[in-house]
Amino acid sequence: MIKIISVTCFLCLTAASYAQQFKTEKRARDYGIEIGVMSPGKWNAITDVPGVQVGHLTRQEGDSVHTGVTAILPYKGNMFQHKVPAGIFIGNGFGKLSGISQINELGNIETPIILTNTLNVGRAIEAVVEYTLSQPGNERVQSVNAIVGETNDGELNDIRSMHVSKENVLNAIHSATSGPVQEGNVGAGTGTVCFGFKGGIGTASRVLPPSLGGYTVGVLVQTNYGGILQINGAPVGRELQQFSFRNKLLNNVDGSCMVVIATDAPLSDRNLERLAKRAFIGLGKTGGIVSNGSGEYFIAFSTHDSVRVAYDTPSSILHQPSLHNDYMSPLFMAVIEAVEEAIINSLFAAKTVKGFRATIPALPLNKVLPILKKYNALSQPN
Amino acid sequence: MIKIISVTCFLCLTAASYAQQFKTEKRARDYGIEIGVMSPGKWNAITDVPGVQVGHLTRQEGDSVHTGVTAILPYKGNMFQHKVPAGIFIGNGFGKLSGISQINELGNIETPIILTNTLNVGRAIEAVVEYTLSQPGNERVQSVNAIVGETNDGELNDIRSMHVSKENVLNAIHSATSGPVQEGNVGAGTGTVCFGFKGGIGTASRVLPPSLGGYTVGVLVQTNYGGILQINGAPVGRELQQFSFRNKLLNNVDGSCMVVIATDAPLSDRNLERLAKRAFIGLGKTGGIVSNGSGEYFIAFSTHDSVRVAYDTPSSILHQPSLHNDYMSPLFMAVIEAVEEAIINSLFAAKTVKGFRATIPALPLNKVLPILKKYNALSQPN
Amino acid sequence: MIKIISVTCFLCLTAASYAQQFKTEKRARDYGIEIGVMSPGKWNAITDVPGVQVGHLTRQEGDSVHTGVTAILPYKGNMFQHKVPAGIFIGNGFGKLSGISQINELGNIETPIILTNTLNVGRAIEAVVEYTLSQPGNERVQSVNAIVGETNDGELNDIRSMHVSKENVLNAIHSATSGPVQEGNVGAGTGTVCFGFKGGIGTASRVLPPSLGGYTVGVLVQTNYGGILQINGAPVGRELQQFSFRNKLLNNVDGSCMVVIATDAPLSDRNLERLAKRAFIGLGKTGGIVSNGSGEYFIAFSTHDSVRVAYDTPSSILHQPSLHNDYMSPLFMAVIEAVEEAIINSLFAAKTVKGFRATIPALPLNKVLPILKKYNALSQPN
Amino acid sequence: MIKIISVTCFLCLTAASYAQQFKTEKRARDYGIEIGVMSPGKWNAITDVPGVQVGHLTRQEGDSVHTGVTAILPYKGNMFQHKVPAGIFIGNGFGKLSGISQINELGNIETPIILTNTLNVGRAIEAVVEYTLSQPGNERVQSVNAIVGETNDGELNDIRSMHVSKENVLNAIHSATSGPVQEGNVGAGTGTVCFGFKGGIGTASRVLPPSLGGYTVGVLVQTNYGGILQINGAPVGRELQQFSFRNKLLNNVDGSCMVVIATDAPLSDRNLERLAKRAFIGLGKTGGIVSNGSGEYFIAFSTHDSVRVAYDTPSSILHQPSLHNDYMSPLFMAVIEAVEEAIINSLFAAKTVKGFRATIPALPLNKVLPILKKYNALSQPN
Repeated sequence: MIKIISVTCFLCLTAASYAQQFKTEKRARDYGIEIGVMSPGKWNAITDVPGVQVGHLTRQEGDSVHTGVTAILPYKGNMFQHKVPAGIFIGNGFGKLSGISQINELGNIETPIILTNTLNVGRAIEAVVEYTLSQPGNERVQSVNAIVGETNDGELNDIRSMHVSKENVLNAIHSATSGPVQEGNVGAGTGTVCFGFKGGIGTASRVLPPSLGGYTVGVLVQTNYGGILQINGAPVGRELQQFSFRNKLLNNVDGSCMVVIATDAPLSDRNLERLAKRAFIGLGKTGGIVSNGSGEYFIAFSTHDSVRVAYDTPSSILHQPSLHNDYMSPLFMAVIEAVEEAIINSLFAAKTVKGFRATIPALPLNKVLPILKKYNALSQPN
Repeated sequence: MIKIISVTCFLCLTAASYAQQFKTEKRARDYGIEIGVMSPGKWNAITDVPGVQVGHLTRQEGDSVHTGVTAILPYKGNMFQHKVPAGIFIGNGFGKLSGISQINELGNIETPIILTNTLNVGRAIEAVVEYTLSQPGNERVQSVNAIVGETNDGELNDIRSMHVSKENVLNAIHSATSGPVQEGNVGAGTGTVCFGFKGGIGTASRVLPPSLGGYTVGVLVQTNYGGILQINGAPVGRELQQFSFRNKLLNNVDGSCMVVIATDAPLSDRNLERLAKRAFIGLGKTGGIVSNGSGEYFIAFSTHDSVRVAYDTPSSILHQPSLHNDYMSPLFMAVIEAVEEAIINSLFAAKTVKGFRATIPALPLNKVLPILKKYNALSQPN
Repeated sequence: MIKIISVTCFLCLTAASYAQQFKTEKRARDYGIEIGVMSPGKWNAITDVPGVQVGHLTRQEGDSVHTGVTAILPYKGNMFQHKVPAGIFIGNGFGKLSGISQINELGNIETPIILTNTLNVGRAIEAVVEYTLSQPGNERVQSVNAIVGETNDGELNDIRSMHVSKENVLNAIHSATSGPVQEGNVGAGTGTVCFGFKGGIGTASRVLPPSLGGYTVGVLVQTNYGGILQINGAPVGRELQQFSFRNKLLNNVDGSCMVVIATDAPLSDRNLERLAKRAFIGLGKTGGIVSNGSGEYFIAFSTHDSVRVAYDTPSSILHQPSLHNDYMSPLFMAVIEAVEEAIINSLFAAKTVKGFRATIPALPLNKVLPILKKYNALSQPN
Repeated sequence: MIKIISVTCFLCLTAASYAQQFKTEKRARDYGIEIGVMSPGKWNAITDVPGVQVGHLTRQEGDSVHTGVTAILPYKGNMFQHKVPAGIFIGNGFGKLSGISQINELGNIETPIILTNTLNVGRAIEAVVEYTLSQPGNERVQSVNAIVGETNDGELNDIRSMHVSKENVLNAIHSATSGPVQEGNVGAGTGTVCFGFKGGIGTASRVLPPSLGGYTVGVLVQTNYGGILQINGAPVGRELQQFSFRNKLLNNVDGSCMVVIATDAPLSDRNLERLAKRAFIGLGKTGGIVSNGSGEYFIAFSTHDSVRVAYDTPSSILHQPSLHNDYMSPLFMAVIEAVEEAIINSLFAAKTVKGFRATIPALPLNKVLPILKKYNALSQPN
């Protein structure tokens, strides 16, 4: 029998009590880990970008089912009728992200972004298609470019049994809210492994000062990859002697990382693609080595009202504002910082899981915090 | 009630009687349309490339269901365990082809190639995943890169009802055979429209002379696009006054075309991508204009035994022969000719269909052949 | 001693007398070759796009020097200070076009486009840099992205001696004018070979009807490639028994083709790249096979006033209109037609040349026109 | 009057005395900065990859000329006749690297790689072309794909005067040697600025343990970019309060970085491209933010004897060994470490320069080393 947790329990919470609950969880920044020089937004989450909503559907059943779905909505509404500009960067294409070519060709997305496990991408696409077809106003739609990304949770989850259902996907979409975002073993991060520790969902944001445009960049990650863990510069993986190739053997270092980036800056699809490319560096700063089997995808979209593209167009000419190339650099710095922090957040939030093939421990804070101290990576004593 | 035709009836035919049956259908070449200067293979089909198999599953029910599945197998066997090199060219990315980034990254494919309708891509991916997981020897496989392409048959087919089932996909795969390939209103071509006429599945091949390597290039297309139809150089669309923008109006000219290319030449993934790129020109020579909404994808793979890539590798070093860049040009000419002919074949084979929204007529041979004669496009009087 | 012809003689002609002179030369269309269904502009040239200027510098000296420079200016003025959006498609990357990555990254060009021979690209870049540095207003410029394309005229030209000088390049730029464009053995086309005949510079244009936007698409080509010549659908190369691999031998079929595309439609860089991709088909319809050694590059830019990007920006936000994706298709049809006609124009205009290694004959009209007649490819009897 | 230094003085040194001299210069590792977990090669330089040679030509004249050329030769010999496989990744395309499309298309390079300043790329191309044409055995060569990269040294160098001559380029090529590589203010790094400090040339290498293949990865960088300097994880830029946007102003943060990667692993062009992509992360770990105007290019080639591609081919089939995808990951880790260290090496080696527009200080070791100590980034007390 399958338990659907998380969604049902969180749906009934008000945003306030929701925030309340999260306050009990310390995030990386609460321990004094201040990555970079820019300031996070109110929630330090992708939802700091106005309009963005996130929903998780978590599937846990005994030891063998640890998987789920995370849905990111650029805005609540009919995205097919009013598409948002988007760009993709592929750090390593060993993955199954759907929808790539249409984003590259048309420069926009028309559905929520769904994250799940590797073998359930097909079913999730089907769910997104049905969701879009059934939205009021889409009665004549015959083509839907579903954006479904994944990482492989086969270590903790009996992935071959393909447990994620279409209903799970729809639930994740419908449960999406703004405000704080749950991290760690939730949604598409329920069964993921990162640097040998339990990974999961993480999020973070940066707000530019008004003199640099005042824009917000928000990031959400699904972490499931390897390398040599580095936290705010400190060589944690090396100190713990837990990293890829440590014993000079070619063991399995693969996994993947999905990175979703939102901004309210009015960016063209080309500059969104450039923003996505810089996000790759944020992943690298955590010690990721983008191993052969680790699919790394970065999707960026703009939520700025005036850059939406209407499907049924009254006019052939679009009048979209767009940020001049020369003003992109602060956003580049922001996305690098936010991705690095979102990944670290995923590790701090995740809990130990006894799963299908193994037990994967949470990041051992009792060992990690002293290392961070040793390397002066905490802004204030823990 | 749903009828599954084609598969059941053809499965019981021997290759010989199968060929027999096709002989009753005249193909473009039988009318004297000889495209290019190179010679076709025995079947003038993608199956002239040794090992390649094709299976169709056709769905027709009353007026509203005209859709299906076509499966192309580079070889019969466990492709996941022994992958084949592959390359992709995207003529227009407004489509939903899955599996793109992994082909680009790793240079190979590990599943059959499936063609179907736009909204059933998700379900077809799921079917391919299940097919692969269940193949003997794949008991520990946890990641499958399904290659599923599509065109939109929503004019003739009630596409929003998503009629293609997983069983349909599996049937197409399991029914795949070598030998002659059924064309026209079959499989993924059951409901497609091309240049305003009934399109469908088409195939053709070219064999290089021994002095140029003696390799075979085979092509299979799913035609569903527009422009100004040109047959062997003759301006058929213009003569029939049936073409895009004829009334200076921006009417719907969209559709898509999927092109699958096989060769037994030992090509690297890079040179397969180059081969796929030239195929674009074959489509252009039929009058296609690659309109905004017409997704055009070209996938090329090599069936040469020595270029297969073992999944469980005894050695870290591959020893694959590969054709030198300088010897690619004859293959480029071959693929252009084969694509052009395969598309024309799809039009000649397709029959008039009364469908969901409209009745789409077959290519009117009574008008077309005189035009071809007028433009001297027939090698012998019809 | 080196003769610089063309520039000096044409510079002194008024636009009127210039047009006069060209009237004495019959172009393909004057023979009844009407490619496609759309209408050309006034000059049937890239210069039909308002503002575009073309300049040739032709170098001929005895048998051994047959080379030159062609400059295409999106507009007369300081392009560095007001850049124009641009996109590139690479049909085959075996060539030396400079400036590619910056166009892809920033979406614009900041210099004239220069065409010349393969081995003089470096010197031409240097000339463009000096030209830009010396323009009034550019006193503080320290970075210039020169766009220099080439084809290999080594059959007719002693290319290894690198005859093109910086002055030649500057002369081509400074001599650029609007109005009719000289074709054939001029500028960068002085020494090129196409389908075994003398190739060269060609140009053509298409104007959309007002109902489709009324935009103009203009094309200029430098033709130097091979395959099986096809003129307006007629199989000229096959009839003349002059084509690649005719004797089943892998002889030299290489060369290259540069294609420059201008439009006054307000296109984003992404849609300019899409326009450039469709141009590939125009080349294919002339019988080009894009052989291994034939670099095929397509550069498209928009001259629309409101899409220029100021270098010194008063504001961080650009307000550029851009054509909606859905309205691109007529432009796609236009560019295919214009490229096909421009290439044929280059062949009709070129004259026989006795050159460095061989004598390359002009297209033999006495044989070609009867073939066109045989295939009904002339709109009116010649 | 122009002084050509470096080349003349170093040419006459034996490898032994050359090494001697470098021993007097402490490199980052000599201070205890041990980046990553893998071991460097003998010289900790790109020249640890057997066969690779590096030559510098340094131009310094008074305050206004600070520029030069660095040449990297995959091997000493005729590269045109025996090309080496290569791949490129473009982190930011705002730069002028020549030769990109042909590397992507054909998968190899046929000339030395040249680095110089932005405005001298054209002249350097010309020099490489002349160099190649004049090599014995290339008497009939008519096409040369010169690979010339650059960064902008306009702050220290009067770049608009384009001081680098063709002879300078040829000298850099001819002076190339194996063994230790001079770093800092030499060659193409003479006038570069990195994180606000004097940048320049840097190099480093990693050797895989035999169990992981035993291959060597060597890197050479030309550093000229910005961000927030991080050394072995320590936030040096933040501590020094010297980083991009520190005062919330959009000041000039641009520059560029060229990264050349050599390996003796037998890699396909595709896997070389993948290797180049990972190098991006090494740059990011130093604090680079890949600002709008900072062109970041990564070129990787293999020196393995058996993967060279003969120009005049006796056979149409190549028999090149290639590393299986699954064995790439250790190389990915190696390149990330080597790039990070090479960049830091460039900063440690560079000296303060009073130049054309400003005086750019060397990295202030007296301040930096205490910071590194504070963050425990030194393996042993300094």
